[in-house]
Amino acid sequence: MTHNPWKTLGTKIVYKNPWISVREDSVICPDGSEGIYGVVDPKIATGVVALTPNREVYLVGQFRYPLQSYSWEIIEGGADGNESPLAAAQRELAEEAGLVASEWSPIGGEMHLSNCFTSERAFAFLAQNLSETKRSPDATEVLTVKCVPFAETLAMIDRGEITDALSIIALLQVARSLA
Amino acid sequence: MTHNPWKTLGTKIVYKNPWISVREDSVICPDGSEGIYGVVDPKIATGVVALTPNREVYLVGQFRYPLQSYSWEIIEGGADGNESPLAAAQRELAEEAGLVASEWSPIGGEMHLSNCFTSERAFAFLAQNLSETKRSPDATEVLTVKCVPFAETLAMIDRGEITDALSIIALLQVARSLA
Repeated sequence: MTHNPWKTLGTKIVYKNPWISVREDSVICPDGSEGIYGVVDPKIATGVVALTPNREVYLVGQFRYPLQSYSWEIIEGGADGNESPLAAAQRELAEEAGLVASEWSPIGGEMHLSNCFTSERAFAFLAQNLSETKRSPDATEVLTVKCVPFAETLAMIDRGEITDALSIIALLQVARSLA
Repeated sequence: MTHNPWKTLGTKIVYKNPWISVREDSVICPDGSEGIYGVVDPKIATGVVALTPNREVYLVGQFRYPLQSYSWEIIEGGADGNESPLAAAQRELAEEAGLVASEWSPIGGEMHLSNCFTSERAFAFLAQNLSETKRSPDATEVLTVKCVPFAETLAMIDRGEITDALSIIALLQVARSLA
């Protein structure tokens, strides 16, 4: 039974800022009752595992406001407007880490970070053959960039020092492909 | 630099339903400018890899309204009120799959599914030594449950048939521990 058991009767935007939009749909639920469904529509999320020839990875540390905690992650950012996930990943790699890469490959396909209440789609890429370019972080970001051995990123996951889902998936998938 | 570079000046709830709450905080950004930060506060998310002695896993299929697409996942659900993540996982295993397990172990620690705009925290568990109980799915859910070989779940990830982040992380982590 893979058909849509929900029926949408109407929709209204209940909140919007430059980064997310929240709508409340009036629906007929799968059991036939009338109800509502609140959906958060954000930008497409992208992540980059920037891997050096000697198997080091660039990690970005920043304070994540929604969780009020510091987070070490792969290079991440949202796709602007009609920007493709790859183009966004390339832009973020330059902005956050000051790097360009001549080899790009997708890490798996489209992922859904929290499909219960958001339509957020995410894509991860492996970036190799890196060279330096001018760094230009967003004014709202205070970032620290460090380069750590790939094996250490897995240890950071296991010690609970990397908690961001997109980072965990991308690093575990790269581990599988390197194994 | 792991201190909080943001300053919160005020907060207001801009949307709320029984599942999520959205607030807009007035903030001083890391660069000193005044701004806003919209944060979605949902329930704690839990996921269960229910593993049989012959290495089969229970998957749940359902139509995910926010993405308007069908999704195969591990058993998942939100923690109600002050319910612990483990208690929520145990309840969801019974409700969705009609199973109880006598062996539970955490799969990694706390994860953050989309830390850019939500405070969502997620926890995954491995459930073993399963036995049947009465199934009682939520009235708003239309679920299909199937039991598939563990190796097949990894193939489903690789074919893009499992796209849910919490499911991917939990299954890849179990694969590491079984390897």
